[in-house]
Amino acid sequence: MTLERRLQQSQGRVQAALERLLPAPTLHPARLHEAMRYAVLGDGKRLRPLLVYAGGEALGVDGPVLNTPACAVELIHAYSLVHDDLPAMDDDDLRRGRPTVHRAYDEPTAILVGDALQTLAFRTLAHASEPAPARRLQMIDELALAAGSRGMVGGQALDLAAVGRELNAAELEDMHIHKTGALIRASVRLGALCAPGADATALERLDRYAKCIGLAFQVQDDILDVAGDASVLGKESGADARHHKPTYPALIGLAEARDFARELRDSALAALERFGPEADTLRALAEYVVERDH
Amino acid sequence: MTLERRLQQSQGRVQAALERLLPAPTLHPARLHEAMRYAVLGDGKRLRPLLVYAGGEALGVDGPVLNTPACAVELIHAYSLVHDDLPAMDDDDLRRGRPTVHRAYDEPTAILVGDALQTLAFRTLAHASEPAPARRLQMIDELALAAGSRGMVGGQALDLAAVGRELNAAELEDMHIHKTGALIRASVRLGALCAPGADATALERLDRYAKCIGLAFQVQDDILDVAGDASVLGKESGADARHHKPTYPALIGLAEARDFARELRDSALAALERFGPEADTLRALAEYVVERDH
Repeated sequence: MTLERRLQQSQGRVQAALERLLPAPTLHPARLHEAMRYAVLGDGKRLRPLLVYAGGEALGVDGPVLNTPACAVELIHAYSLVHDDLPAMDDDDLRRGRPTVHRAYDEPTAILVGDALQTLAFRTLAHASEPAPARRLQMIDELALAAGSRGMVGGQALDLAAVGRELNAAELEDMHIHKTGALIRASVRLGALCAPGADATALERLDRYAKCIGLAFQVQDDILDVAGDASVLGKESGADARHHKPTYPALIGLAEARDFARELRDSALAALERFGPEADTLRALAEYVVERDH
Repeated sequence: MTLERRLQQSQGRVQAALERLLPAPTLHPARLHEAMRYAVLGDGKRLRPLLVYAGGEALGVDGPVLNTPACAVELIHAYSLVHDDLPAMDDDDLRRGRPTVHRAYDEPTAILVGDALQTLAFRTLAHASEPAPARRLQMIDELALAAGSRGMVGGQALDLAAVGRELNAAELEDMHIHKTGALIRASVRLGALCAPGADATALERLDRYAKCIGLAFQVQDDILDVAGDASVLGKESGADARHHKPTYPALIGLAEARDFARELRDSALAALERFGPEADTLRALAEYVVERDH
């Protein structure tokens, strides 16, 4: 199977799992449930679920056990986008090529959709039948740490505080490590934790990989915001500059930012040196993260 | 020990546990952590934690094992208040006698504070050392069901949809069963689930109790909004009418609403008939819910 086909298969798999998992659009209260589905079932990249599947695969796990953490991380990501797009936050009208939730519905609904998607993420892990209870609790614990005030939400707070300020490279990296890095690392770890025999050394290597591609992903996002094509991105380009948000191209230059993304990819690949072909999907994802055009 | 003293003791207990649990106000990102503490550590009634402790007590459990669910339900409640007060929702300036989070800080911070408090609620249960893993997963599952789109958040959606509409009594009850009833029921159940031998019959009786006092609590809230004193309430009275929100006094009359609250209290007490003095705190709480003036 080609790697591209493997990625498409994972995308189809998480999409089907999310469709089953989300409450039916007719379930009471129907408008909220319809809006929750709208927020999640759009045309996302599904990078985090792909990292869950690939993280599990690297330790020899496959099968439905991975669907649970794959859906959980995507639900956390989807909720964060809904809240991030709100008028009080980034005030974005477009997301994944469609009106954002508060534009398609209304602002209170968007707040509640985000809230309910976060709840559903944790319920999904608690309600599953595998892996074993103690392991699932560890997964909930790690996902919550990555999503909360010391992870993703903390990163959003740092991002807001950075608007209009001059950040240095260390501060910018700190913000990204929180805002996107923590959840990307958790995605790989949650997949790996589905392997009954996941050992500390393997987890540490995968974590090193995930740290690098998490930051590379963000550097590439900044590059695309400057140099990307809105029709390919599905959102407006130049939004970061308009919001006076610090970016790598603004801080170190566009060519240097491209170099930095590639260095990070190389470090990510180096962390996987001791793995065999079972880590090929992770390797392909490292390439994708810095080569993607949207 | 008098029942009043018992309630005060529980309030002190959950307050201390929450102070330990919330990230230090100096922890990076400090402004977010400071705002999270501001949102939670105010002068709340702590009704839901009290129900956790009393629910455990009714099945013979006491001790630190109950602190975890007590904090988790209060964190869910606190997050919902922060989001409910937002300009796009109820647009309230005062909460528990102090400026709401978006007034004391700013609107994006309030959104993030709510998000992070929800995450912390689930992390608290996942990260604890007791009860046993399978039981803790059940508690997370039940809390998430009660807090999510089919519980509390669903009730907020129904509440928003009801503004300016004529609801009948069945629709108003449906809204309250979701908005406040679900989390109140979960509080009693989570306390009871800390008892290793919690059996289905006992849980069913406690659930019947909790259903009744959950609705009684809301009827009393409506009564206080019409007939309460702002200086005692710690928030503006008459807010429901100003927001064109349906209330029991508006729907069935003030005297009838008071009668209804007392009937619900009597049904709650009847559900506890087979319990001995170990359920006295639950009984006292049923009285408190309909007699309170704030």
